[in-house]
Amino acid sequence: MPAALTAHSATLAIDETLRARRAAGERVLHLGFGEAGLPVPDPVLTVLRAAADRNGYGPVAGSPEAREAAAGWFSRRGLATHAAQIVLAPGSKPLLYALLAALPGDVVLPRPAWVSYAAQSALAGKRVIGVPVPPEAGGVPDPEALAGALRAAPEAGVLVLTVPDNPTGTVVDRDRLRAVCEVADRHGLAVVADEIYGELLHDGGTIPRAAAFLPERTVVTTGLSKSMALGGWRIGLARVPDGPWGDAARARLVGVASEVWSALAAPMQAVAAYVLADPPEVRSHIDAARRLHGTVARAVHDEFTAVGADCRPPTAGFYLYPDLSPRRGALAAHGITDGASLATALLDRHGIGVLPGHAFGDDPQALRFRAATSLLYGDTTAERWETLRSAAPLDLPWVAAATTHLRQALRALTTHP
Amino acid sequence: MPAALTAHSATLAIDETLRARRAAGERVLHLGFGEAGLPVPDPVLTVLRAAADRNGYGPVAGSPEAREAAAGWFSRRGLATHAAQIVLAPGSKPLLYALLAALPGDVVLPRPAWVSYAAQSALAGKRVIGVPVPPEAGGVPDPEALAGALRAAPEAGVLVLTVPDNPTGTVVDRDRLRAVCEVADRHGLAVVADEIYGELLHDGGTIPRAAAFLPERTVVTTGLSKSMALGGWRIGLARVPDGPWGDAARARLVGVASEVWSALAAPMQAVAAYVLADPPEVRSHIDAARRLHGTVARAVHDEFTAVGADCRPPTAGFYLYPDLSPRRGALAAHGITDGASLATALLDRHGIGVLPGHAFGDDPQALRFRAATSLLYGDTTAERWETLRSAAPLDLPWVAAATTHLRQALRALTTHP
Repeated sequence: MPAALTAHSATLAIDETLRARRAAGERVLHLGFGEAGLPVPDPVLTVLRAAADRNGYGPVAGSPEAREAAAGWFSRRGLATHAAQIVLAPGSKPLLYALLAALPGDVVLPRPAWVSYAAQSALAGKRVIGVPVPPEAGGVPDPEALAGALRAAPEAGVLVLTVPDNPTGTVVDRDRLRAVCEVADRHGLAVVADEIYGELLHDGGTIPRAAAFLPERTVVTTGLSKSMALGGWRIGLARVPDGPWGDAARARLVGVASEVWSALAAPMQAVAAYVLADPPEVRSHIDAARRLHGTVARAVHDEFTAVGADCRPPTAGFYLYPDLSPRRGALAAHGITDGASLATALLDRHGIGVLPGHAFGDDPQALRFRAATSLLYGDTTAERWETLRSAAPLDLPWVAAATTHLRQALRALTTHP
Repeated sequence: MPAALTAHSATLAIDETLRARRAAGERVLHLGFGEAGLPVPDPVLTVLRAAADRNGYGPVAGSPEAREAAAGWFSRRGLATHAAQIVLAPGSKPLLYALLAALPGDVVLPRPAWVSYAAQSALAGKRVIGVPVPPEAGGVPDPEALAGALRAAPEAGVLVLTVPDNPTGTVVDRDRLRAVCEVADRHGLAVVADEIYGELLHDGGTIPRAAAFLPERTVVTTGLSKSMALGGWRIGLARVPDGPWGDAARARLVGVASEVWSALAAPMQAVAAYVLADPPEVRSHIDAARRLHGTVARAVHDEFTAVGADCRPPTAGFYLYPDLSPRRGALAAHGITDGASLATALLDRHGIGVLPGHAFGDDPQALRFRAATSLLYGDTTAERWETLRSAAPLDLPWVAAATTHLRQALRALTTHP
């Protein structure tokens, strides 16, 4: 049992901590958790309700209808796909775990990267090789640094890329992704492309895809948790490559799936089949969501830069990854000297929950943290609908109160006492 | 990647094979899969539909309501339990995997035992120590044999017990279970008690519980897949012991859960809260189901004994584990000399799907297989309701056709050609 796994996933742990504090009456600003705090559109509720009577296990890889819909979904996004390449699961998290367990070799991770890749690698008995991401954007390591790391790591087998990125809320550019895939190809690596935020580019654009550059050995994972705010429904999917390598990877993936979770819940397969067909009501919902995420993330970005933080401008999803090292002197006067003391001060003195950079494999000394902006849209379903439909969401009282709360805290911590 | 995991779970694989053959127009008798082929009662459908709008992730261990209900469920069954001891998950399978990964030491398995324990152990990097079950009942090894095996296996850490048993459809008696728990206690083992069939004793009785005999170190797993025929809804739960050992085990279990599956789907938590409160409509549904399972399993048992098989009389669940070695001579004349050739002959010559004993860790030479009787209740929801409500289910045409199909196949294979 790796030590990393005696603890709770950092992102889920802070969610439970903050909800408990809020339930106890504290005024808490929840920037800790990547839940896309939006409600479920009625047509999607209708699909789940209509499929409630499906109670058989069904195929491990997913229902034929859901796999067909997923194949169409990828094909419409530039990756020709047939249904046999698709595996559905209760979330993309179990798929990522199963891939890290099933694909041979050690795991290469961008640094920083989502909290669970390293823990999953440890659970799968894999060594992790961390490679820094360049300052321009997150989720993908620097190609030169990757090549250097791989020369020193002959056992490396799998490179995880996060496009768009968590924690930085940015998207790698196409040329850099291609260069990284070329390095991966030269070293015989498989790529796992975690594209869970791929529908949430703020400008409505599309992501560059590793599967276009390394088609034979790129496995894509995604799901409905972020784009459709269905995290609590646990619907994820993977696309394995066409061809013999993909067939073998699929067999191993489905083997692990069959022994760990059996299948995605049958009623949820109907939801996947519906949403992945891209009906207009789903597209318009996702369009509204990505615009809202962009508006709020940019506003919060402004708060960070206003106090002197370095912070990549967010272009996708609902995360920011500010670096307060330009204010290291002022912070030190408040006893804040590293990522942990910064996160603790935000929580204990200001009721603001964030995840420090070291949870993402970053340098513990760095004054960086991830701020998720997706739980600022209100506490009730009614508030969340109003936020999603508002032409001026920043002016809504619950959103304005949140940004004010953050502003005051950042000013206090970056002002010499 | 252990070799065991490059293959599909045997039980899920045969289900997919048989469904494909049936879809292709073959007349197939599906005795291969442990799906409790019964429909969902309306009140349960109503609960899922009403909870459809719950789309947040929620706590890893489960919603407070579901955990409270589960605590009450165990408490009413003689195991005083508080909500903090409960962990819900998308099925008991992921909980079993997580426990085998999280609890220290190698894994001791009864032989034969459910197909996935060994594969899960391999995935978790654990060695498996097999100990035969005595002829009187399945699921629990012989205490003397266990003690002997443990003297030779100082790294053993976890003993898995299946009560009621899969594949034998029988229930260990209380004194034997106590003796086995005493051996486990002396050797410092943890016990994982898989009680997924615990509500399905044909006579309505209750199972003996390892957690009563080794309260400090027994983790119980169960779920709604079998008793409520909700396999496709993926609702499982674990009860960890009260006390420091249980607290540590829970922390490790929830740690693995947080990195592999996050949480049970939120709408399904509402179903768990409802069903685990034991409302009368749930109790009467389960009572009808266990009576039906008993009636059909006993009828199929009669078919096996009629051709001279040794077969433990079934007392719980919907499995039989016949041994055709008394007819080894006749079978050999048909080219059947071991478990694999027996299962193949049943499938290829008679369209009957079963799982050979070696899938359960039994001797490959033995002429044993598991027959699941729960997919004989009809192919449509209407037929299944009629079967469940029938005073004479064996006389229904689809059930009678299935037993006739089996009888003819068994007679053909056990008659000298």
